[in-house]
Amino acid sequence: MIILGIDPGLAIVGYGVLEYRQDRFHTMAMGSIETPAGIDVEERLKMIYDDMCELIRTYRPDEMAIEELFFNTNQTTAIAVAEARGVILLAAINHGVKISEYTPLQVKQSVVGYGRAEKCQVIALVKNILKLGSELRLDDTADALAIAICHAHTRGSLMQDYFNEKKKKLR
Amino acid sequence: MIILGIDPGLAIVGYGVLEYRQDRFHTMAMGSIETPAGIDVEERLKMIYDDMCELIRTYRPDEMAIEELFFNTNQTTAIAVAEARGVILLAAINHGVKISEYTPLQVKQSVVGYGRAEKCQVIALVKNILKLGSELRLDDTADALAIAICHAHTRGSLMQDYFNEKKKKLR
Repeated sequence: MIILGIDPGLAIVGYGVLEYRQDRFHTMAMGSIETPAGIDVEERLKMIYDDMCELIRTYRPDEMAIEELFFNTNQTTAIAVAEARGVILLAAINHGVKISEYTPLQVKQSVVGYGRAEKCQVIALVKNILKLGSELRLDDTADALAIAICHAHTRGSLMQDYFNEKKKKLR
Repeated sequence: MIILGIDPGLAIVGYGVLEYRQDRFHTMAMGSIETPAGIDVEERLKMIYDDMCELIRTYRPDEMAIEELFFNTNQTTAIAVAEARGVILLAAINHGVKISEYTPLQVKQSVVGYGRAEKCQVIALVKNILKLGSELRLDDTADALAIAICHAHTRGSLMQDYFNEKKKKLR
């Protein structure tokens, strides 16, 4: 299964593309879509949408995992991030990519095993799991990879449950 | 000039298409894009985007005027509305439609002449200005028409300023 992990934003959208097969990860791509601050919001949304479509056409992910949005102290930023998230979801559905959403707590729990883990712990574990070094520079990219790992673990255990259930029925 | 006024939302997007020529309005279309609550958010965003594109292709507006988003008490709704707003802005820019944004205060000031006017006063004035009766049913549609009127007034006075300035220079 190929998973596209997304950390949404208007200035920076972090992304990571992982192939997950037999409990092993292969990092196909990682990076960020960045938009300049000096132009209109709609221009930035178009850049994000177009780049997302390009990403999906290039790597053909089976599923996309994206961070669920919560309100923090900066509400103006939250509106901009939600608008960006809207066009990211649109790019996925327009290419038939199934979408799953995870809270930061779920991601930390899945990657570090502890929901209140620090950012640096998440990055360290992502590097460890994917055997990455200094090529992983941006926090947003690390977050996107963490979301993709979280989705793989969740899907993996769901599928395990499904097969266990099937085995039980066959007995 | 043809103006598309939009009151953004995830469940209901109110719209109104006005032709504004020599200080007169002609209502070309009005209504709402509605999406059902029981389906995935991304499906609803796709419905809104597709219907917005269809609206723009049908009425070919020169400009779009849309309400600026502020945080109210219901923050979960605000995220959903912002996501919808993102795909609405994308539909406009993908068809080369210029976008202007107005706050509710600016809209009320422009339509009623008083920034703290009640909703019912706005609706009454919209009906009066556009000579509409019971065919204007939804509040969201009335809001969209109010935004379009606000934009026409703003653009009208901007153009008046421009011509006055030009006249002065010719003197």
